Amino acid sequence: MADSFSKPRYSTLRWHDGVDGHLVLLDQTRLPTETVYLECRTAEDVWQAIRRLNVRGAPAIGVAAAYGVCVGVQSGRSVDEVCDYLATSRPTAVNLFAALDRMQRASRDGNVPDLPPRLLAEARAIDAEDREMCTAIARHGADLLADLPTGAGILTHCNAGGLVSGSGDGTALAVIFELARRGQRPQVFADETRPLLQGARLTMWELQQRNLDATLICDSAAAQVMREGRIQAVITGADRIAANGDTANKIGTYSVATLARAHDIPFYVAAPTTTFDLSLEGGSEIPIEQRAAEEVTHAFGRQTAPDGANVYNPAFDVTPAELITAIITDRGAIQPVARDTVCALLD
Amino acid sequence: MADSFSKPRYSTLRWHDGVDGHLVLLDQTRLPTETVYLECRTAEDVWQAIRRLNVRGAPAIGVAAAYGVCVGVQSGRSVDEVCDYLATSRPTAVNLFAALDRMQRASRDGNVPDLPPRLLAEARAIDAEDREMCTAIARHGADLLADLPTGAGILTHCNAGGLVSGSGDGTALAVIFELARRGQRPQVFADETRPLLQGARLTMWELQQRNLDATLICDSAAAQVMREGRIQAVITGADRIAANGDTANKIGTYSVATLARAHDIPFYVAAPTTTFDLSLEGGSEIPIEQRAAEEVTHAFGRQTAPDGANVYNPAFDVTPAELITAIITDRGAIQPVARDTVCALLD
Repeated sequence: MADSFSKPRYSTLRWHDGVDGHLVLLDQTRLPTETVYLECRTAEDVWQAIRRLNVRGAPAIGVAAAYGVCVGVQSGRSVDEVCDYLATSRPTAVNLFAALDRMQRASRDGNVPDLPPRLLAEARAIDAEDREMCTAIARHGADLLADLPTGAGILTHCNAGGLVSGSGDGTALAVIFELARRGQRPQVFADETRPLLQGARLTMWELQQRNLDATLICDSAAAQVMREGRIQAVITGADRIAANGDTANKIGTYSVATLARAHDIPFYVAAPTTTFDLSLEGGSEIPIEQRAAEEVTHAFGRQTAPDGANVYNPAFDVTPAELITAIITDRGAIQPVARDTVCALLD
Repeated sequence: MADSFSKPRYSTLRWHDGVDGHLVLLDQTRLPTETVYLECRTAEDVWQAIRRLNVRGAPAIGVAAAYGVCVGVQSGRSVDEVCDYLATSRPTAVNLFAALDRMQRASRDGNVPDLPPRLLAEARAIDAEDREMCTAIARHGADLLADLPTGAGILTHCNAGGLVSGSGDGTALAVIFELARRGQRPQVFADETRPLLQGARLTMWELQQRNLDATLICDSAAAQVMREGRIQAVITGADRIAANGDTANKIGTYSVATLARAHDIPFYVAAPTTTFDLSLEGGSEIPIEQRAAEEVTHAFGRQTAPDGANVYNPAFDVTPAELITAIITDRGAIQPVARDTVCALLD
C-alpha cells in the first residue's frame, strides 16, 4: 500500500565508517528465514563471501570487490596483489573484473601516501554510480508504467532487486518500488523461479521488507494468473542483451514473455545500459550456460528424482526482441525494441 | 529405444492369490528412491494406504478400495460396514465411491455363501476394465500420433501413467509406452511439476522403469525446449473435462498448452470417457481447488519463502478446448475438440 510503503530496512552491503573501516554484507544464503550481516575485515573474508554467494548479483559483486580492495590493502598488501586474488572469486563475473580494473587504475592515479582514501573514494564512486543507475531505471520505468491503474498486478521472475545491487534498488524491482513510492499500489506476483527459487527466497523477502502487496506463485501458475486477468504488466531484469534487443535472462523468462504475449500483457525488461553487448548481433549468439542436474534433482537437500535421471537445466533463456514491449534503461526506455532503437539509445 | 523398451518391472497394485489372499501395493510415497511394496491384509491397511497416499490417482484408488473390500470381509465384517469405512479414506475421490458402490451391488447379487469369490471377481473386473480402458487409450493415441517421426520429442506434465492405474498403463504415458512398443523411440521430456513434483518423482521413475529416453526439466524450461525444436507433441492427462472440451488438469497444464500453441506444437489430452462431466457447459464451471501455501513455501522439508508469505496455489487450471488438438479417449479421439464432437463420441 502507498501509505505503508517502506524504505528498505536492510542494506545489501555498506562500508562501515572511514579509511580503517570494513565491509558489512547481508548474508543472502541465510535469507529468507534469517537476516544476518557478515563483517568482512580482510580480502579473504570478501573473497569467501563472493565465492559462497553470501553476496550475489553482478553489480553487488562489483561493489563488494571494490570495497574488498580497501580492506585488502589495510594488511599492507599491494593493490595488484589484492585485485589478482579477488578476481579469482567468481570466474565469469564481468562487473567484478570491471570494478577491480577501476580500483587498479585509481591506485596508480596519485601519490602512494594517499592510497587508502583514494581507494575508498573510488569504491564509493562505484557504489554511488550503481545506485544512481538503479534510480534512473526506476524513474524511467515508473514514467513508462504511469498509466497502469492503481492496484495493477505486476508479475516478476527471479530476483532483480536491491539484493543484486550495492546500495541501489536493483532494476525490475526498482521500477516496482518507484511505482509504490508514487502511490500506484502495485499488486506484485513473484514467480518462485525454479530451480534455485530466487523469487521465493529473495524477491518475496524484498517485497515484504518494503511492505508491498506480494503473492508467491509456482512458475507454472503464471499463465493461470494471467488468464484470471490479474496481471497488467510483466517486468524482469536481464543478464545480457544483444544489439537487436534479444535478451538473455534467468530460465523461465522466455516462457513468461510468451505467455504475456498470448494474454496481451505488456512485457518489460529493466536493465542498465552496461547489460548490452553490441558485439552480439542477436540472441542466438548468446551462449547458454548449462547447470548441474543436482539443482533440479536434489533441491533443498532432498532427492526428488530417480538416481541417474537425465536432466536439461539451462541457466538462461533468450527472449526475442519482438516479445519485449520496451527495455527500460538508465538512459531511458527503448520502445519498440529493435536494432535501430537500441543503437539510437546507446550511441 | 525400441529394442530396449521394457515391460514394467513394477506393479502399482495386485491381488496376491485366491479368495484368502491380500492386496500388494507399491508404496508411492517412497518413490523415486525406494521401491517398497506394502502388504494390505486388513481394511485398515487399505484405508491407511489410501489416506497416506501410498496409492494415489483416481483409478488406482478405486481398484485398491475394491480389493480392500475383499480383505475387509475376511475378518467377518459385513460388506456395507467395510464399504462405509473405506469411503472415509479420501473424501473427494469419485472412483473410490463408484468402486465401493459396485462392490456393494455385487454383494447383494447372489447367495451369501458365495460372497468372497463374488467380491473378488468384481474387484478383478473393476481392475480389468481399468486396464482395458488404458489399453484402448494407448491404442487410439498411438494411432493418432503414428505420423510422428522416429525419435520425436514428446513433453508431458505431472504423472498420468501406470502409477495412477490399477494394473493398467495410465493415460498420457500409456500412449507414449505404446509408441515405444511400436518402435517409434520417443524422446520424452517430463516437466517436474511444482509444487508436488509428480513429474520428477513419478513420471521420471516410470519412464526409467520402461527404459525410455527421458529428460527432466523445470516447468519454466518447457518453452525453451520447445523453442529449440525438440518437442513435436505434448500430451497430458485430465482431471475433469466439460461438455465443450475445456479440460481441468494439474496446475501448469494450461501454461504448457499455451506455449505449445505459440510454437505450433500439437497439444493432446488423454483421458477415459469417465473423465467427462457433461453437466458442465464449459471450463468456467469447473471449481478450482486451492491448496495449502506450505506446498510452495515449505517444499522438500525446508522453508524457501519468508514467514507469512502470501501464496496463490491452485491445484488445477483449465485449458480451453481451442488449445487442445485432440482428446484421446478409450472410445477414440475427439478432433477437433468442441461441444458437438464431444457429444458425438459420448452419446
